[in-house]
Amino acid sequence: MTTDSSVLSTMPTAKRVALLNRDDRLFHVILAQQVQRETIDHLCKLAEMIRTVAETRQGVHFLRTLLSHKRAMLYFIQPSTRTFLSFASACQILGMPYDEVRNPSVSSEIKGETEDDTIRVLSQYFDLIIMRHPVEGFAETMAHELDALHLSIPIVNGGSGKDQHPTQALLDIYTLLRSFAEDSGPKGIPSFAHDRMAGKTIAFVGDLKRGRTVRSLVYLLGRYPGVRLRFVSPPELGLEHDIISYMKRNEMEYETASDLGEIIGDCDAVYMTRLQDEYDIKGESKSIDYDRFRLSADMAPQFKPNLAILHPLPRRNELDRALDTDPRARYWDQVKNGMWMRAAIIAYIFNADAAILDHFQSHYTY
Amino acid sequence: MTTDSSVLSTMPTAKRVALLNRDDRLFHVILAQQVQRETIDHLCKLAEMIRTVAETRQGVHFLRTLLSHKRAMLYFIQPSTRTFLSFASACQILGMPYDEVRNPSVSSEIKGETEDDTIRVLSQYFDLIIMRHPVEGFAETMAHELDALHLSIPIVNGGSGKDQHPTQALLDIYTLLRSFAEDSGPKGIPSFAHDRMAGKTIAFVGDLKRGRTVRSLVYLLGRYPGVRLRFVSPPELGLEHDIISYMKRNEMEYETASDLGEIIGDCDAVYMTRLQDEYDIKGESKSIDYDRFRLSADMAPQFKPNLAILHPLPRRNELDRALDTDPRARYWDQVKNGMWMRAAIIAYIFNADAAILDHFQSHYTY
Amino acid sequence: MTTDSSVLSTMPTAKRVALLNRDDRLFHVILAQQVQRETIDHLCKLAEMIRTVAETRQGVHFLRTLLSHKRAMLYFIQPSTRTFLSFASACQILGMPYDEVRNPSVSSEIKGETEDDTIRVLSQYFDLIIMRHPVEGFAETMAHELDALHLSIPIVNGGSGKDQHPTQALLDIYTLLRSFAEDSGPKGIPSFAHDRMAGKTIAFVGDLKRGRTVRSLVYLLGRYPGVRLRFVSPPELGLEHDIISYMKRNEMEYETASDLGEIIGDCDAVYMTRLQDEYDIKGESKSIDYDRFRLSADMAPQFKPNLAILHPLPRRNELDRALDTDPRARYWDQVKNGMWMRAAIIAYIFNADAAILDHFQSHYTY
Repeated sequence: MTTDSSVLSTMPTAKRVALLNRDDRLFHVILAQQVQRETIDHLCKLAEMIRTVAETRQGVHFLRTLLSHKRAMLYFIQPSTRTFLSFASACQILGMPYDEVRNPSVSSEIKGETEDDTIRVLSQYFDLIIMRHPVEGFAETMAHELDALHLSIPIVNGGSGKDQHPTQALLDIYTLLRSFAEDSGPKGIPSFAHDRMAGKTIAFVGDLKRGRTVRSLVYLLGRYPGVRLRFVSPPELGLEHDIISYMKRNEMEYETASDLGEIIGDCDAVYMTRLQDEYDIKGESKSIDYDRFRLSADMAPQFKPNLAILHPLPRRNELDRALDTDPRARYWDQVKNGMWMRAAIIAYIFNADAAILDHFQSHYTY
Repeated sequence: MTTDSSVLSTMPTAKRVALLNRDDRLFHVILAQQVQRETIDHLCKLAEMIRTVAETRQGVHFLRTLLSHKRAMLYFIQPSTRTFLSFASACQILGMPYDEVRNPSVSSEIKGETEDDTIRVLSQYFDLIIMRHPVEGFAETMAHELDALHLSIPIVNGGSGKDQHPTQALLDIYTLLRSFAEDSGPKGIPSFAHDRMAGKTIAFVGDLKRGRTVRSLVYLLGRYPGVRLRFVSPPELGLEHDIISYMKRNEMEYETASDLGEIIGDCDAVYMTRLQDEYDIKGESKSIDYDRFRLSADMAPQFKPNLAILHPLPRRNELDRALDTDPRARYWDQVKNGMWMRAAIIAYIFNADAAILDHFQSHYTY
Repeated sequence: MTTDSSVLSTMPTAKRVALLNRDDRLFHVILAQQVQRETIDHLCKLAEMIRTVAETRQGVHFLRTLLSHKRAMLYFIQPSTRTFLSFASACQILGMPYDEVRNPSVSSEIKGETEDDTIRVLSQYFDLIIMRHPVEGFAETMAHELDALHLSIPIVNGGSGKDQHPTQALLDIYTLLRSFAEDSGPKGIPSFAHDRMAGKTIAFVGDLKRGRTVRSLVYLLGRYPGVRLRFVSPPELGLEHDIISYMKRNEMEYETASDLGEIIGDCDAVYMTRLQDEYDIKGESKSIDYDRFRLSADMAPQFKPNLAILHPLPRRNELDRALDTDPRARYWDQVKNGMWMRAAIIAYIFNADAAILDHFQSHYTY
């Protein structure tokens, strides 16, 4: 059995989704396409409850009992601080011990082991594998291999090559919903039951071709009728055809633009991204004038009063540091939201969501 | 005081064993020769109990209280994923916090500290050191040094150069006993009180000269009268003389063979090993035709119906991947058994075995 | 906002201290100058109580509940084993989950993120950052940046370039007080309420220019009237002017000497240090005859019977290994004292000191 993602590329998405879910719930969390609207709503509500419960010491202790009987492996082969520590924090919040494989130079790989065998071994030690990997489809292929050998444990995709980053997309949705809820209407938990996306204009700016967070997020936004998307990128770094096809099939309203300044005044949210030049094959990014895809504090007079500025981080120059103290900057919140959302996802995978809902309802007015 | 294993090489084994034990129990776990038959039986029973108890959430929580008052250091200077995470998981199962030293580039060694001083410092922070080291005798020498400075804490050998790997040998015995118990007779806990080894034929295949797991396992099999050993290896990579002398002194029944195909049909277990070419001095392994020491799925028609196929992993080509789905493949179980056995060993070191037996007897029919 | 320590260098110390404290308590722990005498006394007493409580299993469990609702980040960019694991152990003792950033090659830095952004992200995940960094003033600058962005969490300085190492200085004071208490008078907890420093002679030997532990320790000794300091170093590696000015302003009694042999007989404590050649710019240390700044076992006949020999470790040749078994060697104790003192500091930061005092008074005669 080898790591062969060619099988995946010819398999219909519905089939892939069916293989990753169990009993209508997410088992492996690999593709944004697996996540139905009601699951998004549920996870956002759960994340908000966890955050609220964690405000008291007693609540923190409650959360730490939820998964203290499970253990997780963080298999992060691509460099990462932010996502790694976000998942690690989520595990700590849920009381779940974890360990990591990050630096192949201290591991058995130098003895010539295949990565397939490594993943099988990990499946014997841990109850969950959270995986970041440079190879598209690797996490999904491993999920299928473990299933075939009856060694199944859930695998969560923490970023797969240029392809997908579904937990980032979920935390982005959560951040957008929290931002839009501040406009008007019910606050807190109840607001996640309302559709705050309809009629909102969201711009995506930068390297849209190789930004896996944008790809996953567009899939999820396809679950929100009435949302309006704007894409601003260098011509070489536009959205891939599969995403465009997806938007067309789902009758999503979208436009492309070449100048951020022309559209920023219409936006309710702007999602900035950095140049993903680690995927360059021969330095092709160097000739791109990325300054045109920069959000500058000079543009602030054009911003809507409630504009939400997002960035998955790390940033370089495309997001002006002068905006850091602007209340419309939501990227630090976004970081924190990621921790709560990932705690929600992991709790959900192990069916601990019911206990969270019970605890919340018996301690808070809902 | 320097790290000088020459003292060890001239000391009689009985003396070495006496220095490592305390009150007839293992204190430091360094040499397979320390482990008497009754201790093997006890540890196997303990491992089986821990595994059984861990099946319920309540049981997991019980186990996590056992060593929550102790803390461990995993000092792994040789590259390792499998053994490291096996011990790490064992610590997590017993609720024992741990930390690690693995990558000398992030440690104080670059400031010119000797490793002796590092180990002494670690003895001040932690209650247990689990140590994998490329230098034969290093763990044992350190045990003596800490004793001399009245800084004693238990040291567990997680693999010492080409020399020994006693916890791997214990998990291998545990795996063999579980496999053989499936043949007939009592199952589960009681089966570990019976001698399932007598009359069994076990073949060891590959690099027997530098495979520390084989060396330690032969020492332990010396505790089982009536077991029959077969050794199949390239002439350059045969067993070392000390092991052969040990087998003769203990009147063990063994034979060497040059062709795996000729003997495989008689085997109840086959223990495959990879070429340990990290110990090559000048690439001498390259001229060896290791394909003759490969277990191929083509040989399956010759296998006994209950053959147990073991491999300490990582594997390369010597173990055919087509055997992975054969029910006689026991190497994934072996991985899991290692985690339970290491939990048993650590619990035993800290005298937590009595609590496990009590818990088991009050919750399960025995 | 950039990392600019030039602002700090022109700011009066009193102002810097005021910015780091809150309500007359340490909030960020960055500079030794922040620590008043009564805080030193309090922390030493707390360290001694934690050590005592930790002797029983019940006590260990009590300690592990103290900060189980908080989580810590160990951001250690300079190589370190000892200090890292001392803080890690302190976190484990207090039941506080932690994770680490140590090796920039596995982190987001290679994607071009500034360290400022990294620290901001960490402030979103964790309740405390313990930081070791090669750049002087980095920890303090970050403390101010987080304060400015309303992302404040406490930052503890675990060593900042050649500048300061306040937690080491606190553990050194604690070690000195414990050693001097053995002379006469009350033992244990009560002894920390007495001034054991007055009239004692303490020699500092070696690279005093670049040894941050010495710098921080002199600041703290400024809180003890009547202590007598001796400084023995190569002329090129003498104390910096700021420390000399500090001693003069505080009317501390000190002398410099060029020969350790001439003064060792008068000393109650000797604090040895290694050559800090990692800070060499072009190998200037190579021409220094450091053998003259070595404590040799040959000098032992001159030692006072209760001399306390300290060394922050790692050592090289400047501290004779033949002294390791001399009861006056306090450097292994010093290591252990560090763990207890850091637990005390962290407990104090989160106001868990009251709970420790209560527990101690209800379980021990005081």
